[in-house]
This record gives sequence, C-alpha cells and structure tokens, in this order.
Amino acid sequence: MKATIMNPGGAVELAEVPDPTIRRGTDVIVSVVNAAVCGSDLWRYRGETEVTAPTQVGHEFLGVITEVGDDVRSLRKGELVISPFTWSDNTCPECRFGVQSACRNGGHYGALDRDGEPVDGGQGEAVRVPLAEGTLVKVTEYDPEHLPSLLTLADVMGTGWHAAISAKVEPGSVVVVVGDGAVGLCGVLAAASMGAHRIIVMSRNPARQELARQFGATEIVDRRGAEGEAVIAELTNGVGADSVLECVGTKQSMDTALAIVRAGGAIGYVGVPHGVELPVPTMFARNIQIAGGVAPARAYLPQLVDKVVNDVIDPGRVFDLQVPLSEVSEAYRAMDERRAVKSLLQVSDL
Amino acid sequence: MKATIMNPGGAVELAEVPDPTIRRGTDVIVSVVNAAVCGSDLWRYRGETEVTAPTQVGHEFLGVITEVGDDVRSLRKGELVISPFTWSDNTCPECRFGVQSACRNGGHYGALDRDGEPVDGGQGEAVRVPLAEGTLVKVTEYDPEHLPSLLTLADVMGTGWHAAISAKVEPGSVVVVVGDGAVGLCGVLAAASMGAHRIIVMSRNPARQELARQFGATEIVDRRGAEGEAVIAELTNGVGADSVLECVGTKQSMDTALAIVRAGGAIGYVGVPHGVELPVPTMFARNIQIAGGVAPARAYLPQLVDKVVNDVIDPGRVFDLQVPLSEVSEAYRAMDERRAVKSLLQVSDL
Repeated sequence: MKATIMNPGGAVELAEVPDPTIRRGTDVIVSVVNAAVCGSDLWRYRGETEVTAPTQVGHEFLGVITEVGDDVRSLRKGELVISPFTWSDNTCPECRFGVQSACRNGGHYGALDRDGEPVDGGQGEAVRVPLAEGTLVKVTEYDPEHLPSLLTLADVMGTGWHAAISAKVEPGSVVVVVGDGAVGLCGVLAAASMGAHRIIVMSRNPARQELARQFGATEIVDRRGAEGEAVIAELTNGVGADSVLECVGTKQSMDTALAIVRAGGAIGYVGVPHGVELPVPTMFARNIQIAGGVAPARAYLPQLVDKVVNDVIDPGRVFDLQVPLSEVSEAYRAMDERRAVKSLLQVSDL
Repeated sequence: MKATIMNPGGAVELAEVPDPTIRRGTDVIVSVVNAAVCGSDLWRYRGETEVTAPTQVGHEFLGVITEVGDDVRSLRKGELVISPFTWSDNTCPECRFGVQSACRNGGHYGALDRDGEPVDGGQGEAVRVPLAEGTLVKVTEYDPEHLPSLLTLADVMGTGWHAAISAKVEPGSVVVVVGDGAVGLCGVLAAASMGAHRIIVMSRNPARQELARQFGATEIVDRRGAEGEAVIAELTNGVGADSVLECVGTKQSMDTALAIVRAGGAIGYVGVPHGVELPVPTMFARNIQIAGGVAPARAYLPQLVDKVVNDVIDPGRVFDLQVPLSEVSEAYRAMDERRAVKSLLQVSDL
C-alpha cells in the first residue's frame, strides 16, 4: 500500500510499504478514507524534533474496517470508524478514569506496539489498529458532508474540547483562547458549546479571526505579549478571564495565559509544552489552577460524534485545504507556510 | 496594651505597644480572647525569612468587639468574631469570586494598611481590624468549649479545607495527605467531611498519626521520599491517588505529591512554596491538575462555623499546648522543637 513516510531531517514522501495484517486477535485493519496533518507533525517536519529513521507518520484518520481479529466482538467489516490519536484498551484504570491518552497498555501510531511490532501511521491507505475495541468509535448514521468534522474528533476537536473542560468553562464564563491554530479554533467552538458568555480570541490572522467569529468568538485581540495582555486586562476591567485555553505550548503563550487569568481562575493547556515554565509563587498568591495535557480524545468521541451528526457543531471548517493522498507533501508545505490552518487528505472513497 | 513582637533574627517577646484606635470608619477594634501561633510564623522565628525591624506578629485570633467605626452597620460591641488570616472587603471582584485572600483592597495583620497605617498582629491583647464588615464573621451561638475549634477557622482549618477543595475531593475519593502538621491534619478532617473513601496520611510521628486517625485517616504511611511513594503505589495497586493534599510546601513534598497522584488526578497545594518546581512535561503526559494557593479562609468561615457549633467537626484538637499570652515564647519554642503541633494563646476571658 501507499503510506506517508517522514525521513530524517523532516522530508515527507509517499512510499510503497507492506500492507498491514492482523497480528493479534484484538487488531482490526482500517482502510483509510480521510486523514489529516497535525500541527504537531510539523515539529518533526521542521527538524525541531529529531527523526532518527524513516517512519510512517500521521495519527488522525477515519475509515472503513476491512479485517477483524478473532477476539474482536463489537466491530465488523464495512463499519465506518474514527480513531483517536492514540490507541488504548479502554479498560485499564487510567482509561476508566477517562484518561485514555495515558492508557497503560496503549501507544502511538507510526510507532512500535508493546510486542515490538510496527503500527502504521494514519497518513496512508490502511492502518492496523491495536486494541481495536478499546480504541475505535463507530459512526452509524451520518451524512458524507460530516466526514471532515468527524475527522477532527480524532485530535483537534477533542483537544480543543479538553482545553475547555480543563479550563473549567461553564455557562456564563469569560474565556480567552490563546492560539488561533486548529486546536485553538476548536477550543472556541467548545467554549461556545459549553455556554461561555464571552470568548476572546488572540489572533492576528484575518482568515482565522473570521473562522473564530463563526465558531462563537465575541471579541478578537490582534496583539501579542505584553500589549495583548494589556488589551485583555482592559476588556475585563482589570479582573482577567475565568478560563484561559492555552493552545500553543510555548513559553510566551503560557506566560500570557498566566498574565490574563483572574485570581482563582483556571488555565487549560493542551499545546505540547516547549520550554514552558510555571511560576509557582505567582500561581500560589493568586490561586491559579492549571490542568490539561495530552487530550483523551477517546473519552470525548461518543458525545462529539453525536454533536456532529446532529449538526450542533461543525469543526470540519478548520480544514481549508483538501488534497489527495498523492499530494501529501503540499499538505505539509501549506501548513508549514501558514497558507493553510489544517490539511485534509482524501485517501479513498467511502 | 501587650502584644507579641518579632525581632530581627526571629526572637519573640511580649512588649507594651500603643492601644489600637479606630482610624477609618470601616474599622473595628477587637479585644482578643484566643490567638494562635502558625507554622508560617516559624519561618521568621527560625531566621529562614528575614525580619528587618521589630514588628507585631500573629494572624489567627478571635475575640469580642469593643469599638466600632462610624461606617460599620452589621457589627456591634460585645459580639464574638473570628477573623480570617487576611483582611478583605468581600465586595471586590476577587472577593466575589471567592478568593478573598487576593482581595485588591485587603492586606495582612502585623503590616501596614493601604494608608500606611499599622495594623496590629493577632498575638496581642487587641487588634484594629480594617474593612471589618468584609473581614469578620460573627459567632452568635456556641459553647465555650468550641473556642479552640472556632479559632482554627482563622487559618489552619480553612487552609486544610482549601487543600481538599483544590484537590477535588469528593465522595468515594482516594486521598493522600502529605504533611502531618496542623494544616495536614485539618486536611484529613476536611477530606473525611467531604466523603473520601480512603485517606492515607504520610506521618512518622505517633501522636500525629493518632490524631490523624481520629480525624478520619484510614491508613498511615510512615516512610518519606521514594520509599513512601513506593508504599503508596502498592496501596493503590499502582494507580495512585485521585487527590493529593500537599500541606508542606517544600520541593520534596511536592515531588512526592506528583509521584503519587494518578493520571488525571489533582494536587491541592497550600503549603507556602519554598523551592517548589513543577515538571511540566510529566504533568502534561499524565494530565495532572494543580490548584490551590493562599487559602480564602473568609470564604469557608460561615459554613465551617456551622459545622463546629453543631459538633460536626472538632479541629480544635490540633491544639496540644495552651498557654497564657505571657508565655508566648514557650508557645513558639514548643512548636519549633516539634513538642507541640500547634499552640493556643489564652489572652483574655470571654
């Protein structure tokens, strides 16, 4: 089959790799219909995270089951399924607490499983999904137009949702979203779904500002750093925000989050941290809460599928580029050059 | 009047100081009945926090109102009142969010007010209380035996309660309390009141272990550091605790809290941090929540007064030394030498 390979240095290419086969009774094989490129894939693409050997890549996909292991009872050939961006058994203590992203028996796509066997990346024609019954969520009723929105539930929408949950957004909340990437935009949609009263988005990009407004943003702040923090102080009468969704993961974005959250407020952080430091004395003096981390997308999938197929949310609008799998290089390049918020790969027809 | 003075280097003495007088219409004067020595007073006593000039000290007291400023409507001479350990207006945004410890118009005892006028410490015969209507909580019905328990609501019991709230303790929770000082012991009582299923206390002191059990601890771990962490891993089947109450404030105690909390669990920290660092990548990978800080004792006072006068909780048992104000030096010495968990000062009769 064809699959996307990331090489040392970060170059991506579509290559011929062996077709996946069932290796354990709990596996299924999924024929990928749509896949996506993630902001976090860009860390390796840009050489900021080292790639030591050519490796299959991608962790956001949905598709149709083509083969089922002997121990799988609840999934069948022909069913449309979404995978969260990690695989997990959904039965261990961590999973039962709703933190499937920390599953003690789980793992990542494009990496080795616990037996040392390779697991495919999501940006290819097919994927062997380990612990399939714990991992995959079936979608039984939908319109083909829902596919892009359903695909976001694999990662960015689940992650934006996690940011809002972690930041304790509730009806009436004053919310600031730091970051206008796909996750930040999904965070806006999540905060709006949860009944936030005001949703202030920090963004300097007109197209992203527009999408943020469509998703429910009430105000836009087009400054960064100390200037942006001053604007938010003014907008909140010097009080700060109840909830801050930190959807970037840099030192500057977390510093901003800490500067604009009110005393006793909460920061939900979901951007993979790069050089982030937490100033304990300031947090202690102002009772600032910090929560978040690798989103348990699996935990949120069933409720978010319901919202998508019932047209309550439409996060698929974050995809502003759609290309066939053969043009995966362009999908990466457009995101790297910030020509696209997020790229959707058309892999096969339903 | 007589009041406790802390001198540079940390020596405490009882000295004659001017009687407090009403300086603003929102002040009242309280004749102190009981005061207490706080674990945080020991930082200066031991020279670990610098004292630059002789200063009145103490921030835990209850007493009877003897004078009332012209703008005070809801308080009268002769009423018994408890002060939280900071004074606050209870009307500003921070107070309305329940974070009175971050009141924008508030301040500390034994320090200057916003006009540069001195505010008395609590370990003396009388105290001028600024913003009295926002700060003080009346107690109308009680038994004299309740006084020690009511006194703990000024700080340690409110702080232990805050640790449990911040650590998201709920019915059925598995809780670990790190720290067997007065705050940690009050944290045990708080967790028990909130319906925790298991309360594991880290303590190596037999008398404190016994009090912890009386307050509701179900298990005691008498090891520290890596050894203690291993015992807790075993006690929780390798899962960790839902909630950890970090009631010390050292790097070691926070490191232990981080090691024993389960994925997705919460740490409530209330020990004033000294050298604490938060390992962001570990927290992110395991979705560990951190909340807490300077406790808004004022927020919890009304409900905790109810629990004390109705004999639901008896946190006054943390006082294992009671001396007259004239023996304040012994009150400090006994705590410094760990002969006492907490010292109560008998200042005047009701």
